[in-house]
Amino acid sequence: MALSNRARRSRAASDPMMRFFAQVSSADRPDGVDLTFGNPHEMALPGLVEAIRAQVEPQTVDWFAYQNSRPEAQEAVAEGLRDELGLDFEPADIAMTQGAFGAIELAFAALTDAGDEVVIPLPGWFCYAPMLRATDLVPVEAPLDPETFDLDVEAIARAITPRTRIVVVNSPANPTGRVYPKSTWDALAEVLDTASAAHGRRIWLLSDEPYRRIRFDGIGFASPAGSYAWTLIDYSYGKVLLAPGQRLGYLAISPLAPAAERAELRESLGPLQLAIGWGWPDSIMQRAVPALEHVSIDMTELTRRRDRVYDALTGAGYTITRPEGTFYLWGRAPGGDGDAFFRALVERGVTVFPGAQFDQPHHFRITLTATMEMLERAIPHFVELARPAG
Amino acid sequence: MALSNRARRSRAASDPMMRFFAQVSSADRPDGVDLTFGNPHEMALPGLVEAIRAQVEPQTVDWFAYQNSRPEAQEAVAEGLRDELGLDFEPADIAMTQGAFGAIELAFAALTDAGDEVVIPLPGWFCYAPMLRATDLVPVEAPLDPETFDLDVEAIARAITPRTRIVVVNSPANPTGRVYPKSTWDALAEVLDTASAAHGRRIWLLSDEPYRRIRFDGIGFASPAGSYAWTLIDYSYGKVLLAPGQRLGYLAISPLAPAAERAELRESLGPLQLAIGWGWPDSIMQRAVPALEHVSIDMTELTRRRDRVYDALTGAGYTITRPEGTFYLWGRAPGGDGDAFFRALVERGVTVFPGAQFDQPHHFRITLTATMEMLERAIPHFVELARPAG
Repeated sequence: MALSNRARRSRAASDPMMRFFAQVSSADRPDGVDLTFGNPHEMALPGLVEAIRAQVEPQTVDWFAYQNSRPEAQEAVAEGLRDELGLDFEPADIAMTQGAFGAIELAFAALTDAGDEVVIPLPGWFCYAPMLRATDLVPVEAPLDPETFDLDVEAIARAITPRTRIVVVNSPANPTGRVYPKSTWDALAEVLDTASAAHGRRIWLLSDEPYRRIRFDGIGFASPAGSYAWTLIDYSYGKVLLAPGQRLGYLAISPLAPAAERAELRESLGPLQLAIGWGWPDSIMQRAVPALEHVSIDMTELTRRRDRVYDALTGAGYTITRPEGTFYLWGRAPGGDGDAFFRALVERGVTVFPGAQFDQPHHFRITLTATMEMLERAIPHFVELARPAG
Repeated sequence: MALSNRARRSRAASDPMMRFFAQVSSADRPDGVDLTFGNPHEMALPGLVEAIRAQVEPQTVDWFAYQNSRPEAQEAVAEGLRDELGLDFEPADIAMTQGAFGAIELAFAALTDAGDEVVIPLPGWFCYAPMLRATDLVPVEAPLDPETFDLDVEAIARAITPRTRIVVVNSPANPTGRVYPKSTWDALAEVLDTASAAHGRRIWLLSDEPYRRIRFDGIGFASPAGSYAWTLIDYSYGKVLLAPGQRLGYLAISPLAPAAERAELRESLGPLQLAIGWGWPDSIMQRAVPALEHVSIDMTELTRRRDRVYDALTGAGYTITRPEGTFYLWGRAPGGDGDAFFRALVERGVTVFPGAQFDQPHHFRITLTATMEMLERAIPHFVELARPAG
């Protein structure tokens, strides 16, 4: 057969998700309520369309010429990060990428060699493992606290081996909606410093922050880039704009990184982006960044949806992790059988994300990007399924 | 330091090119004539702008949702390939990618494991080697005929070892402008069949065809996909649209591929595209494909430029490989010192691509995407430098 071993291993890691995708597509029905993915269910944000429209008509002969990271995009991102994180980012610390996927791929290419281990959270995003396998890396899962889904710094410490090169963290967290405080990052930094010294090799932190701007109740945000110098941040505009089909994101080097490493990465990320498949966003999207920095989904409305669903489900007896960020809601299936619950909902035309896809068979994930009308249609089904029949 | 070994090896392979980029940027002056890259020097094609503009206003809620290969793009590409190559492509044979870079990256991910060797043409595109190194592959150069720059099938046979997994060919060829006939592919197919049998492992062919539609004098085009069943074709719209900043291309499986391999690749390329960084083009660009299939740079004007420069330079005594395709013109430097010639031209405000970047220190490359006015300004400098002073 044709496939390489690494492609086979990657496919094995993504097969459960791919089978689920196919199952969801075939279950699709006109009156159905799709609560699976972070995809838009309403027309695109006017600010997004306007920002794109403003860049379509060429103003110069090189409008659609080869693009590396465009300076106006790097400047807008660095300024935004300075404001949000209170760290002294400079434009040269920013590599514009094709979404967070592209930024994660770039971080792996820059820092890892074949056979290296990368620690990822459990439950966590289901694409880390296939991405790691495709580039000959070994995913090592570190469980979050099974009740609170707090980051378990000791579990990360136990997951680290002499082959560990990167630890991936994700806050606000998919699927749990948890946001971790600075004290967690300070504790993690200590663990990583100790382990790096013990193994004689620097462990890097990849902070996966696509939901950074999607937070509730005025909760603050701390990036581990402020606690641990050897941190790269990946970001995607696909969440806050709810437009994952227009690829735009970045990889940012922590300004706290030691000068030598910071300089090495600044000058190496560009050549690497070329080498991993010309990993820069399209010209139109990069030119739109200064405008897009100020566009967002309606957080008031998203909060209203979260409150409505959270209150309805907890009122019906569900155990739900109250989301502090993201547009997900993470709950425990009635009776503890996430797959049976998933199937019972599908029969009623409601599709959620089964926890088994996150190796958490007792749980389910709801995506709040659905409209309030869709959520209202779904709620009675959740309420009815909360009570065992008979 | 931070960088992985594979990142270091990739950088070593791209460093000469990166230094050249930096040198060219710094040499830039307002009255200069830039003949280096295949970048636009005139306003974007109206048909391109129109095709993009037509897709900016969302028609449905999922307009900017996650996109895999969109069916209307796959159908338009398959239909175009059937017409052009006379092979029975189906939409499922087409994986839409972020340009040819993305398609090449995908082919490497699908077919190769770390340590595999990939045979590439010499002279050839300077990005093959950095791309290969970034994913732990070993580039092995097979020289073209040093006079005619024909494909040297025997040189490819000699370059093949038990570790060879892919042979890359490129027609119309960068930098030489040569277009190879079907008889060449038939001879190559025989070599690859024999070598695959000898080593007990199938060698795949990657046909890099971004210049396929840029040909002169009505010369025909044969793809090796019609001669050798184990062929993947990569393509970019960045050349024919002269818009490399809007990433759009594809990887196509030869319809002649054995059924099992064809089926395996059809169902594996999607999951792999996700795993190598969500390697699909933006929504707007994919939606524009049916319109873009019919947009092209003005081949009559490009032919006029080729003829003007070719005639002027050969008239002045240069040895030029008459381009059958591409928008490049490949010549021998007067006196045989490509670097000295490059520097002498830079002093006169004219920048070409030195042959040393292609490991051909006697040569230079001119890009005909410059305007006729720019070419007319450059020609006298070429003519004067043709005659040794004194």
